[in-house]
Amino acid sequence: MTECRARVVIVGGGFGGLAAAQALRKAPVDVTIIDQRNHHLFQPLLYQVATAALSPADIAAPIRAIVKHNRNTQVVLDRVVGVDAGARQVQLESGQTIDYDWLILATGARHSYFGRDEWAAHAPGLKTLDDATATRRKVLLTLERAESEQDPDRRQALLTFVVVGGGPTGVEMAGAIAELARQSVSKDFRSITPHCSRVVLIEAGERLLPSFPPALSQKARRAIEELGVEVVLGQTVGDIAADGVSVGNRFIPAYTAVWAAGVQASQAAQWLRAECDRAGRVLVGSDLKLANDDRIFAIGDTASCPGADGRALPGIAPVAKQQGRHAARTILRALRSEPAEPFRYHDYGNLATIGRRRAVIDFGRMTLSGFPAWLVWSAAHIFFLVGFRSRLIVGASWLWNYLTFERGARLITGDAPTSA
Amino acid sequence: MTECRARVVIVGGGFGGLAAAQALRKAPVDVTIIDQRNHHLFQPLLYQVATAALSPADIAAPIRAIVKHNRNTQVVLDRVVGVDAGARQVQLESGQTIDYDWLILATGARHSYFGRDEWAAHAPGLKTLDDATATRRKVLLTLERAESEQDPDRRQALLTFVVVGGGPTGVEMAGAIAELARQSVSKDFRSITPHCSRVVLIEAGERLLPSFPPALSQKARRAIEELGVEVVLGQTVGDIAADGVSVGNRFIPAYTAVWAAGVQASQAAQWLRAECDRAGRVLVGSDLKLANDDRIFAIGDTASCPGADGRALPGIAPVAKQQGRHAARTILRALRSEPAEPFRYHDYGNLATIGRRRAVIDFGRMTLSGFPAWLVWSAAHIFFLVGFRSRLIVGASWLWNYLTFERGARLITGDAPTSA
Repeated sequence: MTECRARVVIVGGGFGGLAAAQALRKAPVDVTIIDQRNHHLFQPLLYQVATAALSPADIAAPIRAIVKHNRNTQVVLDRVVGVDAGARQVQLESGQTIDYDWLILATGARHSYFGRDEWAAHAPGLKTLDDATATRRKVLLTLERAESEQDPDRRQALLTFVVVGGGPTGVEMAGAIAELARQSVSKDFRSITPHCSRVVLIEAGERLLPSFPPALSQKARRAIEELGVEVVLGQTVGDIAADGVSVGNRFIPAYTAVWAAGVQASQAAQWLRAECDRAGRVLVGSDLKLANDDRIFAIGDTASCPGADGRALPGIAPVAKQQGRHAARTILRALRSEPAEPFRYHDYGNLATIGRRRAVIDFGRMTLSGFPAWLVWSAAHIFFLVGFRSRLIVGASWLWNYLTFERGARLITGDAPTSA
Repeated sequence: MTECRARVVIVGGGFGGLAAAQALRKAPVDVTIIDQRNHHLFQPLLYQVATAALSPADIAAPIRAIVKHNRNTQVVLDRVVGVDAGARQVQLESGQTIDYDWLILATGARHSYFGRDEWAAHAPGLKTLDDATATRRKVLLTLERAESEQDPDRRQALLTFVVVGGGPTGVEMAGAIAELARQSVSKDFRSITPHCSRVVLIEAGERLLPSFPPALSQKARRAIEELGVEVVLGQTVGDIAADGVSVGNRFIPAYTAVWAAGVQASQAAQWLRAECDRAGRVLVGSDLKLANDDRIFAIGDTASCPGADGRALPGIAPVAKQQGRHAARTILRALRSEPAEPFRYHDYGNLATIGRRRAVIDFGRMTLSGFPAWLVWSAAHIFFLVGFRSRLIVGASWLWNYLTFERGARLITGDAPTSA
C-alpha cells in the first residue's frame, strides 16, 4: 500500500456501510470501517430475538469476519465523537483521529420517543441486540410472574402486552408476542391458558402499515386479529407508565410495552452541523453528498434523500444497500475523473410478516399476502442474511419453530430474575 | 390432585434436580421445582459459549419446556432464602413459602477464590451463562484493543490469556482460547498474527487433569502444548490484578485471566445449619439424606457423598443425575413403606476435550485419547444435550466450526464496547 492511495472512511457497519465496503473491495483505495459495535446486525429480524425465536448470534456476524477477505479494508472498534470537515479527519472516543479523502456516514438510527424520553424505561425500542435481549427478558419474566400471581387484576395486567406503532416492526412484534404468549409457551405453564394473554397494537394513523397499499393494510389487520391481537387505530398514546399505557381516553393496565413508533437518526448531522430533517436525518442531494461538502456522503437511515416522487426514501435495508453501492461507485468515478451519476432507488418490493405463517408483500405492480407471501419472506430473509453459517442456523431454527411452535431461545439472562 | 398426595420440592433445575423430577413424573406425588433462573444449563459446554463457538441458547433450555409434559410438576422462578426443617417449609425471596414432605436440594456450586474474592473482578469463573458471555466479551475486546494498540509491551499483555486451574474446565478453556486467538480470528485482524497470542495454563498440582490416570494427563499436556498453550505446573497463583498474574516468583503481564481452580457449594448447608466439608458441601450418607433429617436429600455439587473408595464423589454431571434418580426412587420406596437402598455410583468414564480435535477419556479399564476420543466426546455431548432442538443446532454449529474454523457467536454485547 502506497501513500498516494485514496482513503475511504466508512462510519457504521450496517447494511449501507458494508455494501459500500464490499463495492470497494477490489478498488485502489484504503478502506477503514469504524463501528462502536463489533458486529453487523440483521435488524429486520431483531423482533425474532426479542420474542425468543432466534438467538443473537443467528442474526449478527462480526464485521471483521464479513470483510476478512477484503485486503484493502481495516476495521476499527471505536465510537466517532466528531468530524473535522476542514482537516478531513474523524475524531474517535479513544482520542485517535483518522484521516479521510472520502467519508461515508452510515450510522443508522435509534428509536425516538417524540420528546418523551421517560417512556424509554417502560417501553423499550428495538434497534440493538441488547434492546432485543432486554425485551425478551421482560416478556418472559412477566409470564413467570403471572404464573405465580394470585390477584386476578394484577395477573391480567402482567399478561397484557402493548405494542406502540403499526409499521412493519410493530406488526411483526405484535404477531410474534401473540404467538409466544398464546401458543408457544402455553403448555409450559400451569395457571396461564392461551386465552388469558392480551396483545394490543396501537397505531396513531388510520391504518396499519401506512407505507403499504390500503388493501394490504386491510389484509394485515385481519391476519393479525386472527392471531388474537387487538388493533387500536387513529388514537395516540398519551402516557406510558410502569403499570400501563394511556391511549385516547382509556388506560390499559399492562406491565410490558414495546416501542415501535418513531426513529431518530444518529448524531451525524450534529458532528457536521449539517442541515437535517425533523427526524435528524442529514439532507443530501441525488449524489448522496452533503450540500456544502463534496467529500462527505450520508446514506441509509442517516440521510434524507428524495426519491422519484420527491418524498424522502424510507429507512429500510434495500435503500441503505443501494446507496452504499452508489457512494462507492461515485468515489471510483471521481478517481477516474468521471462525473457523479444521480442515485436512483430500485424498489423490488416491501415486506412485512404477521406471525408464523402469513406476510404481506407489495411489489408495486402486484401484491402478495398470506402463506405464499410468508414463504417468499422467509426465503428472502434467509438468503440475505450475511454469511453462510447464519443461513444454516437460522434455517434450522425457523424450521424447528415452524414444525413445533417451540421457541428455542427462551432464556432469561442478565440480572437475577427475581429482582425485576 | 387430592390433598393427600405427597409433596416433593426440588430446589435447583440442574442435572440432579431434573433427573429427580423426570424419575418422579409418573409417580403419585406433586413435584415443585424451584430455581432462580428460568433455564437448565448444560454446564460442561459453557466454555464453548465463553469462546464464541456456541450461543447461549445452544446449551440451555427453559426448565418449564423440559418438564412441560410432567403433569404432576410445577416450576417456580424464585430464590430460596431459607428452609424451616421443623415446619417442613421452604422460604422464598418473594415472601412465599412452599410446604414439602420431601425436599431435594440440588443447588449446585459457584466458583471459589479461596478467600481472595477480589480476584473475581479480574479472573471471572465459569458457572452461568452470564459468566460465559462476560468472558466472551472480555476475550473479544482485548483482541480488538490489541489490534489498535501501538505499544508492543501493552500489546503483548493484551494478547496474553492466563487460565488458572488445570482440571477439565481449565484445560478445555485454555485449548479453546488458543484456537480462538491463534487460529479462528487471525484472518480477521490486520496487526495480530497467530503467533503473537500467548495462552498460559497454571495448575498448582504436579499434573494436568489430576482426576485422570497419569498417562492421560501426559497426553493431555502434549496435546495442549501442540495447540500453543504454555503449561505451568506445581506453582500457585500469588496474586491476580488487572494487568497480570503473579505465579511462583514470576509476573505474567496479561489483561485477561479466567478462573477454573476452585468451587464452593451453594448456601444449602447454611439454610440447614448442616454439617459440611471445606467446600461447603453438605455431608450426606449413602442414602443421600442429611444425618439428622429423614426428609431432606442433598445431591450433586451440593453434597459430599462418599464413593466406593471412601473419598467424596466428584462434582460432575453423571454423579448428579444418578443421585437425582436415586433420591426419587428412595421417595417412591418410602411411599410403599420399603426401606431405602444405598446409593452406588456407576462410573461410565471421565472425559475432557483439548481444542478442536482431541480429547482424553478414562473408561476405568481402558483409556482413549486423540481424535477418536474427540469423536466419542462430541457424540456423547450432543446426545446428552437436553432437548432435540439443542441437539440439532449444536450439531450444526459444531460441524460448521469444525469445517471452517469459524466462530459464529463472536458477538460483543452488553455495555458499550469502548467503555471497557
